Amino acid sequence: MAGNSFGKLFTVTSFGESHGPALGCIVDGCPPAIPLSSHDLQADLDRRKPGQSRWVTQRREADEVEILSGVFEGVTTGTPIGLLIRNADQRSRDYDKIKEQFRPAHADYTYARKYGVRDYRGGGRSSARETAMRVAAGAIAKAVLAAHHGTEVHGYLSQLGPIVLERTGFDLAEAERNAFFWPNADQVVELETYMKKLSKEGDSIGAKVEVEATGVPAGWGEPVFDRLDADLAHALMSINAVKGVEIGAGFAAVTQRGTEHRDEITRAGFLSNHAGGVLGGISSGQIVRAALALKPTSSVRIPGASVDVHGNEIEVVTTGRHDPCVGIRATPIAEAMMALVLLDHALRHVAQNGRASITAPVIPASAPR
Amino acid sequence: MAGNSFGKLFTVTSFGESHGPALGCIVDGCPPAIPLSSHDLQADLDRRKPGQSRWVTQRREADEVEILSGVFEGVTTGTPIGLLIRNADQRSRDYDKIKEQFRPAHADYTYARKYGVRDYRGGGRSSARETAMRVAAGAIAKAVLAAHHGTEVHGYLSQLGPIVLERTGFDLAEAERNAFFWPNADQVVELETYMKKLSKEGDSIGAKVEVEATGVPAGWGEPVFDRLDADLAHALMSINAVKGVEIGAGFAAVTQRGTEHRDEITRAGFLSNHAGGVLGGISSGQIVRAALALKPTSSVRIPGASVDVHGNEIEVVTTGRHDPCVGIRATPIAEAMMALVLLDHALRHVAQNGRASITAPVIPASAPR
Amino acid sequence: MAGNSFGKLFTVTSFGESHGPALGCIVDGCPPAIPLSSHDLQADLDRRKPGQSRWVTQRREADEVEILSGVFEGVTTGTPIGLLIRNADQRSRDYDKIKEQFRPAHADYTYARKYGVRDYRGGGRSSARETAMRVAAGAIAKAVLAAHHGTEVHGYLSQLGPIVLERTGFDLAEAERNAFFWPNADQVVELETYMKKLSKEGDSIGAKVEVEATGVPAGWGEPVFDRLDADLAHALMSINAVKGVEIGAGFAAVTQRGTEHRDEITRAGFLSNHAGGVLGGISSGQIVRAALALKPTSSVRIPGASVDVHGNEIEVVTTGRHDPCVGIRATPIAEAMMALVLLDHALRHVAQNGRASITAPVIPASAPR
Amino acid sequence: MAGNSFGKLFTVTSFGESHGPALGCIVDGCPPAIPLSSHDLQADLDRRKPGQSRWVTQRREADEVEILSGVFEGVTTGTPIGLLIRNADQRSRDYDKIKEQFRPAHADYTYARKYGVRDYRGGGRSSARETAMRVAAGAIAKAVLAAHHGTEVHGYLSQLGPIVLERTGFDLAEAERNAFFWPNADQVVELETYMKKLSKEGDSIGAKVEVEATGVPAGWGEPVFDRLDADLAHALMSINAVKGVEIGAGFAAVTQRGTEHRDEITRAGFLSNHAGGVLGGISSGQIVRAALALKPTSSVRIPGASVDVHGNEIEVVTTGRHDPCVGIRATPIAEAMMALVLLDHALRHVAQNGRASITAPVIPASAPR
Repeated sequence: MAGNSFGKLFTVTSFGESHGPALGCIVDGCPPAIPLSSHDLQADLDRRKPGQSRWVTQRREADEVEILSGVFEGVTTGTPIGLLIRNADQRSRDYDKIKEQFRPAHADYTYARKYGVRDYRGGGRSSARETAMRVAAGAIAKAVLAAHHGTEVHGYLSQLGPIVLERTGFDLAEAERNAFFWPNADQVVELETYMKKLSKEGDSIGAKVEVEATGVPAGWGEPVFDRLDADLAHALMSINAVKGVEIGAGFAAVTQRGTEHRDEITRAGFLSNHAGGVLGGISSGQIVRAALALKPTSSVRIPGASVDVHGNEIEVVTTGRHDPCVGIRATPIAEAMMALVLLDHALRHVAQNGRASITAPVIPASAPR
Repeated sequence: MAGNSFGKLFTVTSFGESHGPALGCIVDGCPPAIPLSSHDLQADLDRRKPGQSRWVTQRREADEVEILSGVFEGVTTGTPIGLLIRNADQRSRDYDKIKEQFRPAHADYTYARKYGVRDYRGGGRSSARETAMRVAAGAIAKAVLAAHHGTEVHGYLSQLGPIVLERTGFDLAEAERNAFFWPNADQVVELETYMKKLSKEGDSIGAKVEVEATGVPAGWGEPVFDRLDADLAHALMSINAVKGVEIGAGFAAVTQRGTEHRDEITRAGFLSNHAGGVLGGISSGQIVRAALALKPTSSVRIPGASVDVHGNEIEVVTTGRHDPCVGIRATPIAEAMMALVLLDHALRHVAQNGRASITAPVIPASAPR
Repeated sequence: MAGNSFGKLFTVTSFGESHGPALGCIVDGCPPAIPLSSHDLQADLDRRKPGQSRWVTQRREADEVEILSGVFEGVTTGTPIGLLIRNADQRSRDYDKIKEQFRPAHADYTYARKYGVRDYRGGGRSSARETAMRVAAGAIAKAVLAAHHGTEVHGYLSQLGPIVLERTGFDLAEAERNAFFWPNADQVVELETYMKKLSKEGDSIGAKVEVEATGVPAGWGEPVFDRLDADLAHALMSINAVKGVEIGAGFAAVTQRGTEHRDEITRAGFLSNHAGGVLGGISSGQIVRAALALKPTSSVRIPGASVDVHGNEIEVVTTGRHDPCVGIRATPIAEAMMALVLLDHALRHVAQNGRASITAPVIPASAPR
Repeated sequence: MAGNSFGKLFTVTSFGESHGPALGCIVDGCPPAIPLSSHDLQADLDRRKPGQSRWVTQRREADEVEILSGVFEGVTTGTPIGLLIRNADQRSRDYDKIKEQFRPAHADYTYARKYGVRDYRGGGRSSARETAMRVAAGAIAKAVLAAHHGTEVHGYLSQLGPIVLERTGFDLAEAERNAFFWPNADQVVELETYMKKLSKEGDSIGAKVEVEATGVPAGWGEPVFDRLDADLAHALMSINAVKGVEIGAGFAAVTQRGTEHRDEITRAGFLSNHAGGVLGGISSGQIVRAALALKPTSSVRIPGASVDVHGNEIEVVTTGRHDPCVGIRATPIAEAMMALVLLDHALRHVAQNGRASITAPVIPASAPR
């Protein structure tokens, strides 16, 4: 496969270029009888879509999704769900300049060396615009997870360049109220000030997103190559601009001792969650926690050195509408990818073990975040 | 699939428990006419095998691999390669104690909740013993990569608890000379002193491994879900005890600005390698670089709280032969997983684009590590 | 996967119900730089589409396909190709009758038992309407096969109920000239007479379709489970109404002796083609030949016994627009499926063996059809 | 994948050459807690193994299977099951002759053109010896099907060259009593006489095998590409020497009318089973019936024309131990492949629809065979 499908049982296959006629995807393997309408998808799409605040790209896209199949009389039928979003804002700028350039830190050069041809309009397939379909598909996964398992997935920004989330005052609901998906209202002004300055300088900045799932029962995940955490790493690293993924303690585990890292257990539950809710690749019933590092967008106004398709040295300046911090809009995308992984593993688990007799006691998910 | 296969075209499927009769795997999709013998696999297996130094588990295993098919008259035939390693040291300790325990930070509890039954002998399938087959399969991938592409994969330890690799004095060859896979001879005594103290205290420690590939041409990797970096994240996170994966700058990208992170380009090559050799999910021709965080082993002599299979609270003490730092032996495993990903993508790339006419100039891999 | 994807490297994933808003598919893994426009797909779609003659369903569908991605400046780019066909003729008949019926030999009952819900409008997903996307995707495969390998795929009807194709007078070009895909002009009047009588009686009839590929080099196919002939059997049997598949001699092999069946070889080529161009699951360089049996459509005007969703016994009469012989329109579908299999295996072959040094002499494809 | 794996959720991956050290396979995705021992596998292996009667190859192989993993304390654990059969009878005959020959109707030529190298000892990977692992894996599938669903799979020979099974006197149990898997004791002498004559003449003959499953509930199978019948066609056509596959009426459907073919339904059940237990790709609850055509073995004593690896014309005579009718031993193999498909679909079905609320009435499986 050429890599445009994700999942083993609950699968998403997507298509679409940044400035082509449309984006779309097919969600296959969805359980039947789940209530679903395009409104359910639109809510998450609106959280991701451009132009929502001055801190993200000002491209104008309604991102209105159409459900073309797989839903009948308000519920899923078990047949594949076709989704379509027409591209509205295909602004007729002069692509001739970018056409012959290899912009630094973009995929221009690697596409040219891979395929020999490339759709240079706005990055073509390499544009983060394709993530709209991940969010739409993820919204379907969220609906199934909620209906069948009570599982919920939530993300937030925990670092924006030098500004680190203060855990005192953590409020997940707040992340939905400000433009930064930041779960602490006390820091929002600081973020705004930082972004204004950055914007004036014409530069961009990295960010860290965290995403977590509650209501995941023990038992999801496969032991060896398809560990739940390995599939999460795959899913999250596949998001544009992501350079690192952590599960639970992540890189902090490097300096931890065994006695510190191991999450001890009592009848009342786990005493900590350094594992991030996954042991031996299988969910433990605790909150599943992941973090991802997003690089600063490469589209900045400050000139950079590069070469063109003829091998000539050039200076690249990116004007136009771009996210100064791609990490901000990554939050709903990260949620979507985690939801896709969780539901896929929920289905895989029941396929093999649905008839298993489980006698082990359930350890409550009591550990702190 | 139940997750015991890895790869799309060059695939590895493995089986085997820690204290069962044998471990084995099937490597399918290997190109024909590659010179191969069991000696080629044994070299890497010996780097991973237990009992090589006092800093790793003292379990005695020859780890002698037998090639059962797919090789004829000294070369691969293109048919599946069956590999087998008999378990030698199935020491008859008293497993009755562990049988009813859920050891903290082990997979005991999650296996019990997933399958209802578990092979409790030494962790069964959840034991890192299965990684022997990854190393054997990875050695085949390395042989193909070297023969067809000149690609080489090398790993080393870059952090052991609080001790961080000093890059001044970096010497990759040294990593093969000491017991820590540490590429700086000047720090080996410090490592030994630290490990002796740790051992005395009965505790364990985390570590960081880095792995890199040279000779990867531009063009390997698929744009969206199966990005080269996403598949690397999957592969590396699937190794026992890994809690985090970075590509290139990794989490350092969170505080980088766009002007710093973007690797500028001249005719002489890239000026830096924050990308870690991957742009838009596709290799750029630079060194492919990844890092992984390994948690401290959970098998320590210091007692820890847990519950048993009946829900009673217990105290767990692990005696026996265990790695005080599982990160040390992870180096050849990380290399193997990177080699598997790279070869799989090399084959995927040629399948689709083998006939493509590529006119883009080649940018040399000039950037520093 | 829920079975709406086909192929390992050149993959087709489709969606769409008979009377939903649209049909669509995503073709992933297409090699780049292949000239392609919607006109290339339309030609084959027009051969399949309803209303082309009085012997097929009179449903009015333009079946106009739109290419939504993956093609830029007239050539494929290597990224996924999104295809869309809007359903035009969603005639507002009374579906309330069928809604509670299990029509004999239809999928009504099995869908109801599988999913609990079903889209009863015109058969929903079980309608042969989905085959439009197979034909569209197959046309892309044909374009790649022709451009890269000189491979061509052609099908024809060789039996319609009691009327068997006379091989004397065989003319493949004639199959494109009459409404029956029948490669012998001398029998067309006989077919018309038969169909008129059948139509008057309100019954339907089975048929046999043959499909063959020329220009397939030796070497495509995988030895064991994914034999070229096994994948062809999968592909052809997956077409609606197909009940049997033969490769080469097919069921005639049951009464053949070894000395008769084996295709002897001279330097000038094979002396016969009982194998149908496949030996040991791998193409031999001869014409690849397959045949398929299509059942008579179950939608007939003559009443039949059944039960309804409440378990009551009922009498079912199908009125409306239906193919009295579904085999007729199956010809382009069979071609499409064979093309998909061949291209997929062409890509799989080059992935593993693209660098193999082949010294065996080429045996010409001299055998008679 | 190079085609040595079968199944989506219950997967079998095999390796091994005819005259290499061993055959083996890995069965992944097996549900836990199924009682299993090597004896369960041996029973079916013994039905397939060579040397059981004078009508099959006299090669001496004990075909003793060893379970290397995935079974603990008498039950499956849910982890992969490794199986191994050592090749015993690697008779040191002169392979130098065959080494340079392309035997007609064998895979010698196609392997040489595909891989450039081949293991010529006894056909290597192309030998039907690999089917031993199919039978072993199939026995595991049978055990799960029986334990969880009450499903049973049985096969028999229904035609041997010109001798057609007389349905009057059909007795499935008899098929296990004679050397021909023939379910009618009255015809066994006729078969023996025919085979003796054939043997004297040094020729071989084709055969037809039928296989059927009882106890398959309605609902298994996926609607479009992975129809239950399509996967059965794939599975059965992948068996060595198979040239045709039928489901239900098969090619007889070509001359059937709709009113004849459609299986009418009453509350007491279906009135016929032309569908072969599959409607719209999904099981209907009736007996699942398939038939397969096996070509005569190509290894006969009567000389045949061919060329060698240098392109010289030669005469090929096969001496040694070969099955004069490969169809005879195909019966347990066909059963195994049907069992693998059924269990895989049972797991796939429950994954997606395990929580569906099914209100449709159950139609009894009352139809005659």
